[in-house]
Amino acid sequence: MTAPQYGHAFALWRDHAPQWRAYTHHAFVEGLRQGTLPQENFLHYLRQDYVFLIHFSRAWALAAVKAGNLSEMRAASGTVHALVHHEMPLHLELCAREGIDAAALEATIEAPANLAYTRYVLEAGYSGDFLDLMAALAPCVLGYGEIGARLAGSGGPYAQWIDTYGGAEYQGLCRDVGALIDDALVHRLGAQWHSLPCATCLSQRFATATALEVGFWDMGLAGP
Amino acid sequence: MTAPQYGHAFALWRDHAPQWRAYTHHAFVEGLRQGTLPQENFLHYLRQDYVFLIHFSRAWALAAVKAGNLSEMRAASGTVHALVHHEMPLHLELCAREGIDAAALEATIEAPANLAYTRYVLEAGYSGDFLDLMAALAPCVLGYGEIGARLAGSGGPYAQWIDTYGGAEYQGLCRDVGALIDDALVHRLGAQWHSLPCATCLSQRFATATALEVGFWDMGLAGP
Amino acid sequence: MTAPQYGHAFALWRDHAPQWRAYTHHAFVEGLRQGTLPQENFLHYLRQDYVFLIHFSRAWALAAVKAGNLSEMRAASGTVHALVHHEMPLHLELCAREGIDAAALEATIEAPANLAYTRYVLEAGYSGDFLDLMAALAPCVLGYGEIGARLAGSGGPYAQWIDTYGGAEYQGLCRDVGALIDDALVHRLGAQWHSLPCATCLSQRFATATALEVGFWDMGLAGP
Amino acid sequence: MTAPQYGHAFALWRDHAPQWRAYTHHAFVEGLRQGTLPQENFLHYLRQDYVFLIHFSRAWALAAVKAGNLSEMRAASGTVHALVHHEMPLHLELCAREGIDAAALEATIEAPANLAYTRYVLEAGYSGDFLDLMAALAPCVLGYGEIGARLAGSGGPYAQWIDTYGGAEYQGLCRDVGALIDDALVHRLGAQWHSLPCATCLSQRFATATALEVGFWDMGLAGP
Repeated sequence: MTAPQYGHAFALWRDHAPQWRAYTHHAFVEGLRQGTLPQENFLHYLRQDYVFLIHFSRAWALAAVKAGNLSEMRAASGTVHALVHHEMPLHLELCAREGIDAAALEATIEAPANLAYTRYVLEAGYSGDFLDLMAALAPCVLGYGEIGARLAGSGGPYAQWIDTYGGAEYQGLCRDVGALIDDALVHRLGAQWHSLPCATCLSQRFATATALEVGFWDMGLAGP
Repeated sequence: MTAPQYGHAFALWRDHAPQWRAYTHHAFVEGLRQGTLPQENFLHYLRQDYVFLIHFSRAWALAAVKAGNLSEMRAASGTVHALVHHEMPLHLELCAREGIDAAALEATIEAPANLAYTRYVLEAGYSGDFLDLMAALAPCVLGYGEIGARLAGSGGPYAQWIDTYGGAEYQGLCRDVGALIDDALVHRLGAQWHSLPCATCLSQRFATATALEVGFWDMGLAGP
Repeated sequence: MTAPQYGHAFALWRDHAPQWRAYTHHAFVEGLRQGTLPQENFLHYLRQDYVFLIHFSRAWALAAVKAGNLSEMRAASGTVHALVHHEMPLHLELCAREGIDAAALEATIEAPANLAYTRYVLEAGYSGDFLDLMAALAPCVLGYGEIGARLAGSGGPYAQWIDTYGGAEYQGLCRDVGALIDDALVHRLGAQWHSLPCATCLSQRFATATALEVGFWDMGLAGP
Repeated sequence: MTAPQYGHAFALWRDHAPQWRAYTHHAFVEGLRQGTLPQENFLHYLRQDYVFLIHFSRAWALAAVKAGNLSEMRAASGTVHALVHHEMPLHLELCAREGIDAAALEATIEAPANLAYTRYVLEAGYSGDFLDLMAALAPCVLGYGEIGARLAGSGGPYAQWIDTYGGAEYQGLCRDVGALIDDALVHRLGAQWHSLPCATCLSQRFATATALEVGFWDMGLAGP
């Protein structure tokens, strides 16, 4: 499958992430598509994803701290705001409909695969610069976009989840994030950034975060 | 003058910051109140304040990264959003009206007093925890509130600036930030936090940031 | 088994870490004691431990950055120096004797359990303060001390590993680190620190790092 | 005057730092060379420099955290060790001979110019990557080397200070740090790093740190 049009860096990094297909075509994803995923696995995933979203929001806030100019700062802080003030309330609502109230969500014990992924991303951001953070954040944002686009219209019990990520709004966000990354790369490293030694390092960060996404789906599939 | 009602920690820290009065009653502030501050000094201040706001927004984004729970995260990310998407555009507009366009603002060379202050706050946040960051951020947020409240209704050429900080919206923000700080202290250190050794360290951070505010007004008064 | 004399905080945190026994009496540890651990598992562990040591050294360097006074800085920087200039060369030597040369070590692909642990510790240090970092570092330093003390004199193929951690020098280091932690707590939070709300948070960090140590032994036992 | 042989990046950055000559030929420096600097100014400088060394050591420890490979980590942690376990004791000894004991040194109140400089360097390191930190650290390390080399053999009351920085050991350190920087640049950005957009940003960091060195000498000259 060709890459969705989320920019140059994404296309390149995606090609060099050995587990990209394992992530985007994971049995958990196929279970969502075909509607065969047991509900308790989905609920387990939702609970963990709530904890994930908290740390993911922190990582985007770190991107605002590390932004190199006003437009990067606006993009990053806009994403934090959307996550904290829209995505997380929606998540709470979705969980509530499934009988998981806010207190239950707050009490979720972070699974090891969840902890590994979020701390990897945050540490990449703290120890590296804005680009390191972007490379570590990209597989989640853009991978969900690719999965959503592929699964769009599948219907079934998980249609709402699928339509969130396959919908026009989320796809637009993916194009924006892809452009943010491409601009940030060119702005710092020039148009030939992909031929520099550090490009390998960034690509490696993307690949590691992709592998950690596989671990996250594995956790969802294994269940509570 | 008694402290405005911005919470317990503020009242305590304010009392132990030797330069609090030098900051809130600075000649620059009196010049704003009496309308005697030369316009070129005000414009110099506005330009530097624009650069300050960028780093100040980054520091609040760092607070979102370091937040200990969802309510702290919401407060911090809400502040970043307000700064980046409302305060900074307003600042741009105010400057534009004075003949300073966006390009001129972007080209502002950061004055040493500005750099000293912003880097002190950011480093306090990076090296310390959420409380260290709050103690370093408080003098700016709450001191402007106290100044605005005292100067409210002074009129004159700087009435817009005065009314921004003396107005109900900003005063409400100050009470919210004061409550955020009080809650964060009690949540981590208990109700008797002020008797712990680290209380001295936090109070010292507030005092140092207050001294750096004096340096910022000095810079404004010295002019471009 | 009573706790070794590594200080007050250790005794308290150890008691509240549900997986402390699972960590210190892990099948991998028993395999070292009885000499029944297959060599290839030991070598797999050694390779991963080399990568671990690099990130562990970085975490101690972060402790030097976050130190609150000169004596904390000296202790932390002394530990980094010992790790980078003594422990790692020793590790290289031990691996070389087993036929793993430096290039092979450098080429080690970090196992997920390894990555999870090291990034958790580093992120705790970046997002929190010196105490958060100490609580996250303690299970490794002091747990190896407790294991070494218990296994001392077991002999067998892993006698050198056992004697390193059971020996007087490492046991002295554990007492020093325990004292560093106790002093740091009292210095910031006072003698009654254990009754403050943040004590729960620190204890939780220790417990999470302990759980990640169990994951590390699991990884060693699973083999390459 | 041509640049000392401390590597390519240094030669380039030095040429683009408008205040390099103002720093290396500052009246304070000339006062050291000619022996005309009043002793109380030198003692004021020594006290502030002690506080500076603490934060400077923390910044080098941060370099160890952010190192990209073992050789960078060794270089950075070796520098921290030298600073904390050799340079600072020497500083204490030098001060003691001048009648300033350890307690007096510890009680030094950090001057604004000192605070501005050290927090700028630390924040550059936290927000950026290893290269940003190196560019911010370089003016101090290498500028003192250039000053020492120029003043070597001047004799007079400040001969010991001059000979420390002009001596073979410190000059060797400067060449090592210069090589560390050059290698780090090529390792990440390739041999043509100076033509990339981020080269301007690094050069700017060096120039800002140089300007902050001028502020430090100004502070020494102004006296206590």
